[in-house]
Amino acid sequence: MELNKDILLEVKERLKKYIHNTPVLTSQLLNDLTGCQLYFKCENFQKMGAFKIRGALNAMLNLTKEELQRGVVTHSSGNFAQALSLSTKLLCTKAYIVMPSTSPEVKRKAVIGYGGEITLCDPNLKSREQASNKIIEEKGCVFIHSSNNLNVILGQATAAMELLEEQSDLDFVLTPVGGGGLIAGTSLAANYFGRNCKTVGGEPFEADDACRSLKSGKIEHNKTTNTIADGLKTELGDITFPIIQKYVDHIIRVEEIEIIESMKLIWERMKIIVEPSGVVPFAALIKEKEKFKNKKVGIILSGGNVDLKNLPFF
Amino acid sequence: MELNKDILLEVKERLKKYIHNTPVLTSQLLNDLTGCQLYFKCENFQKMGAFKIRGALNAMLNLTKEELQRGVVTHSSGNFAQALSLSTKLLCTKAYIVMPSTSPEVKRKAVIGYGGEITLCDPNLKSREQASNKIIEEKGCVFIHSSNNLNVILGQATAAMELLEEQSDLDFVLTPVGGGGLIAGTSLAANYFGRNCKTVGGEPFEADDACRSLKSGKIEHNKTTNTIADGLKTELGDITFPIIQKYVDHIIRVEEIEIIESMKLIWERMKIIVEPSGVVPFAALIKEKEKFKNKKVGIILSGGNVDLKNLPFF
Repeated sequence: MELNKDILLEVKERLKKYIHNTPVLTSQLLNDLTGCQLYFKCENFQKMGAFKIRGALNAMLNLTKEELQRGVVTHSSGNFAQALSLSTKLLCTKAYIVMPSTSPEVKRKAVIGYGGEITLCDPNLKSREQASNKIIEEKGCVFIHSSNNLNVILGQATAAMELLEEQSDLDFVLTPVGGGGLIAGTSLAANYFGRNCKTVGGEPFEADDACRSLKSGKIEHNKTTNTIADGLKTELGDITFPIIQKYVDHIIRVEEIEIIESMKLIWERMKIIVEPSGVVPFAALIKEKEKFKNKKVGIILSGGNVDLKNLPFF
Repeated sequence: MELNKDILLEVKERLKKYIHNTPVLTSQLLNDLTGCQLYFKCENFQKMGAFKIRGALNAMLNLTKEELQRGVVTHSSGNFAQALSLSTKLLCTKAYIVMPSTSPEVKRKAVIGYGGEITLCDPNLKSREQASNKIIEEKGCVFIHSSNNLNVILGQATAAMELLEEQSDLDFVLTPVGGGGLIAGTSLAANYFGRNCKTVGGEPFEADDACRSLKSGKIEHNKTTNTIADGLKTELGDITFPIIQKYVDHIIRVEEIEIIESMKLIWERMKIIVEPSGVVPFAALIKEKEKFKNKKVGIILSGGNVDLKNLPFF
């Protein structure tokens, strides 16, 4: 598929009736603190609490009727599991979710709440793939990757498209980087709909595969992923990486304490709930605020799913 | 002063340039859960994080130039202390805040942050009044009560006026009840600008002076106020009570656990931060949801100032 403006506009039009056009919030206090004009795209207010529903839905809407009827499968212990489950509910079909047996009960409950069917596996790649493949064989359903899938990427692009529709003169748009679906989609949106708008990523030092990949020119891996930003532990793939190489300006890495402090700032000052992964681009902006001085900066607050019984504030 | 529609409209016009017209949020999920259509007026997004700035500003804008120059004094350990401090900052004068020596550091810091000058006193009525009177004598400044002041009440009315402007067909509007300034103002707004819109209060059992006052027909007191809703420990006064008697339909009392569970529901489902006092009317609605079935209900989420290091979730 050759990418162009029209394809993205079609995706946006197709998703419109299923999702929220989330609000863009501003805060004079955070503008003063950072020295730039910030526009927060609140995907924490999105259905199921994160942008992931956009990509999940778009991938499913690209299936044939027969494929759709047979249902879809993915492995995820996070927001994509919920997103795919809710998408299948909205489209009246079935989601099979492979989750590691170590995943927290709160996440399993959320998936079940949206009607997803969980298959538990051992917490390793081999067991996960075996479980997925077994479901694919038995049910004949399509596997949908949480990020490394062009239709998922195009779906994720629609958040930045909405942001740029509301604020067309952004100098920068910042997103977190996990599997790379959001930043790849965002960079496409900035390229086709921005006026010289640069896409910048925020990534934890503890899972900085994307930053290292951009430097080395090949997909790098994380040996460990000891970060509070649990949505950003995943790695780039062969579909996300080339898009990111071509369209993303650079990636800023942040420490764990910077993530927690940024999260506290947003909770206390904006009175909204954003998950650790979602505040990483804001932490990145604060870290290198001189770079953004007096600029108009869009920040995609990617999600708001947290366990209120287990918060990092001290 | 004889109250009428025009006086309220004047107050609203006068405050407009100083405050936010806060958003009204809805949640399909909470509508489904309660069986009514809910319209949340988000005063947690108001300047200084609570509706109190409305009343504080309106009281100050009714002072003479000379009075304004000499500054104002109040005793409060909560949101009104911050509201008066920010109001004096906006109007380029001075706030003297009498606070009990037992008040948490986070609250003192907030007052100082807005430029208020704190005088600590012992945590009892006598010491508090002595400290206030001394400041009034020395500085010649005006005392502004946090709720029992008609101009404060008229200022607080503007939140419900904005809500009714956006959603004119509400059957009910619910607010928390502490000193009664918000509910008195809200009931005036509902009376003058609603179409048969009833005002209902939510109050903790642990500080239910207002509910008992409405029943007995005289101002009742709280022996203890052991509630997490720290903004609702105050009692009605001779200005708030007659308005509440005349215009408030009834008050629903809630248990502490109901406050905490409602707070969790709003945080988790709406992804916004509301303080315990602010969710009390929502807890009241859930408690007696049959009463509100299929009705359009406005709820004033009065504030969002919480100590993130000390949350009640378990």
